[in-house]
Amino acid sequence: MINQEYKKLLKGKSIIRELSEYATKRGKEIGYENVFDYSLGNPSVPCAKEFNEAIINIVSNNDSTYVHGYSPSLGITSVREAVAKSLNERFNMDYQTKHIFMTSGAAGALAHALRAVTKPNDEVLTFAPFFPEYHQYVNQTGAVLKIVPANTKDFQINFEAFENMLNKNVTAVLINTPNNPSGIVYSTKTIKKLAEILEKKQKEYNHDIFLISDEPYREILFKNADSPYISKFYNNTLSCYSFSKSLSLPGERIGYVAVNPRCTDSEILTTIFGQISRGIGHNCPASLIQLAIKEVLYKTSDLSVYEENMNLIYNKLLELGFEVVKPNGTFYIFPKALEEDANAFCMKAKKYDLILVPSDNFGCPGYFRMAYCISKEKVLRSLDVLEKFVKTEYR
Amino acid sequence: MINQEYKKLLKGKSIIRELSEYATKRGKEIGYENVFDYSLGNPSVPCAKEFNEAIINIVSNNDSTYVHGYSPSLGITSVREAVAKSLNERFNMDYQTKHIFMTSGAAGALAHALRAVTKPNDEVLTFAPFFPEYHQYVNQTGAVLKIVPANTKDFQINFEAFENMLNKNVTAVLINTPNNPSGIVYSTKTIKKLAEILEKKQKEYNHDIFLISDEPYREILFKNADSPYISKFYNNTLSCYSFSKSLSLPGERIGYVAVNPRCTDSEILTTIFGQISRGIGHNCPASLIQLAIKEVLYKTSDLSVYEENMNLIYNKLLELGFEVVKPNGTFYIFPKALEEDANAFCMKAKKYDLILVPSDNFGCPGYFRMAYCISKEKVLRSLDVLEKFVKTEYR
Repeated sequence: MINQEYKKLLKGKSIIRELSEYATKRGKEIGYENVFDYSLGNPSVPCAKEFNEAIINIVSNNDSTYVHGYSPSLGITSVREAVAKSLNERFNMDYQTKHIFMTSGAAGALAHALRAVTKPNDEVLTFAPFFPEYHQYVNQTGAVLKIVPANTKDFQINFEAFENMLNKNVTAVLINTPNNPSGIVYSTKTIKKLAEILEKKQKEYNHDIFLISDEPYREILFKNADSPYISKFYNNTLSCYSFSKSLSLPGERIGYVAVNPRCTDSEILTTIFGQISRGIGHNCPASLIQLAIKEVLYKTSDLSVYEENMNLIYNKLLELGFEVVKPNGTFYIFPKALEEDANAFCMKAKKYDLILVPSDNFGCPGYFRMAYCISKEKVLRSLDVLEKFVKTEYR
Repeated sequence: MINQEYKKLLKGKSIIRELSEYATKRGKEIGYENVFDYSLGNPSVPCAKEFNEAIINIVSNNDSTYVHGYSPSLGITSVREAVAKSLNERFNMDYQTKHIFMTSGAAGALAHALRAVTKPNDEVLTFAPFFPEYHQYVNQTGAVLKIVPANTKDFQINFEAFENMLNKNVTAVLINTPNNPSGIVYSTKTIKKLAEILEKKQKEYNHDIFLISDEPYREILFKNADSPYISKFYNNTLSCYSFSKSLSLPGERIGYVAVNPRCTDSEILTTIFGQISRGIGHNCPASLIQLAIKEVLYKTSDLSVYEENMNLIYNKLLELGFEVVKPNGTFYIFPKALEEDANAFCMKAKKYDLILVPSDNFGCPGYFRMAYCISKEKVLRSLDVLEKFVKTEYR
């Protein structure tokens, strides 16, 4: 029989996807170059050329049964080893091969991390504004996602609300820094305070609270950004990474979980992930993609355009009187809408072929998100449109 | 907190994997060419060369943001369309694009199909002998796997036992034909009778019973094999396919679910799969692999060696007095052991560096599985070893 719970989910269509579909449809009418589509976080810069070179090289110069053969369910050992080494070199960590679990992107990483450290009806806390898919990621494990209200002053953590919401049922805290949708990086000060509170509460509750750190934007940092490596500050940290954004490979579904060597059960956590894989049909990311990623662990796409775009948009927003916190990473910006109802605001913008995402689903009403992972040329053209929209509708 | 349920699973290590690891270790001592490793179903023939050509061509001649960009969660539309077309042409079906859902192999396909048509505590029936991973695939959804005892005469379905086990809680039946581990293909007569019973019980129980057909060996058929396309016989069929075996691509994690256009909710089932994907971190198979598979939908690896190997082994087994049903597909054979305890039998074989898998985990004690997806040369050398083992231990 068709599962009615999943069927019900069909009604909760993603606003981001709806707007993106609208943009595509509108593009067919007036030319996509005339639609200023800030809806989707789909990288616009090509992947590092070394990735494609690696693909061709691996396929051309190796035995086919090796390249396309079964990967162990924890990932190809040499790839895991290389990931550990690259993290150790960059962040002065001490990961070993056994601490790395290869996944199909950050979604795959979170699916394993969340299941491993929660049980049904446990609470998982996350901080607004947050990526709306977290509802699905967490709630389909059987645990329950609870949202800590935003600190809209600077989009660091609202610690007062956080401490009020902590209770014995909380077994995991999920953070995303650099943050989608705010573009804000949690400061060293924020992470230290978070770690301190979690340490205290672990003792008080006499059980582990895991910090699940969703880090797909880790490499997209702007000038002078403070960028603490989360796992250095708290032992019970599971770092969930994806190469989607840094290498512009969102379709290839490749990432990993890095288990802090000092966390509880760190010796066996990746093998527990392996057991979870059997039930959710994950098994492992594609072997060819794993082998190719190994060759570009120290590369990124040319990410400079994102900061250029951010500065153009940020300055224009200020000029037009928006309240906005300057992002220090990602390719998102999260200004306050010019009226209380961000949906109404974004609907008005649509009339100008300006596709902005209202913030209700990010757990922080009254704001909107712009994903500026589009060409600089288009950003430049959009600024006049933004000005026209604001001056016409809100003068 | 670490989830204790998953932790417990660590104790249930796969006997197949244990034997395979032993074979690898033993290979390091005496040379892998001297270990007759029949443990793993890992294809030994290279993938169709057109697959590698497609990979190189796609990467070389397309825009990187297209090739590596996000795939829709149901799969790339043009790929789904091509899969539907190929199935329609080969099996005289009438699939449309909306009936095809791209997955990371058969494991991914089963993960979605099982969740979509069962709810927690429902019963899923499967038939011994069966692939032991079905326990994980089913039980981790919340439903409960029940095993219908084998018909050891010919490894078709034991209908008497099946009818006795059917009850109102059964919402799905899971079959695997051509079968791992028996190598047997369910005949048209078997499938017709199965469909007839299910139709009758759907009416009696007044609810759907879905037939989930796990078909990774569909292309590996031997001379004169009767090979009914399951979905033609029963409307509520979800066909789960993988390219792992037919194209020797097990590492690339690529397959699909094909939803029968006449099944309940056929118009929306793939979108329900899409919702399930969000929770299990599946999203979609790697975009490059999807694009490449589209180019080889009518190809297979050179599969002829499997039938040659089967005939060599089958004849030798008969000569040595084994009771064995001749396979008509796959690369497995499933003879009766020469003593009641198949584990003891396989342990004795190990002393001859002959790696055979005892059948207890396949739900059919007293038998053993040989995965003969190895080189013909090695099969030939193994026959003398098999003879020596049998004549020494069981004369």
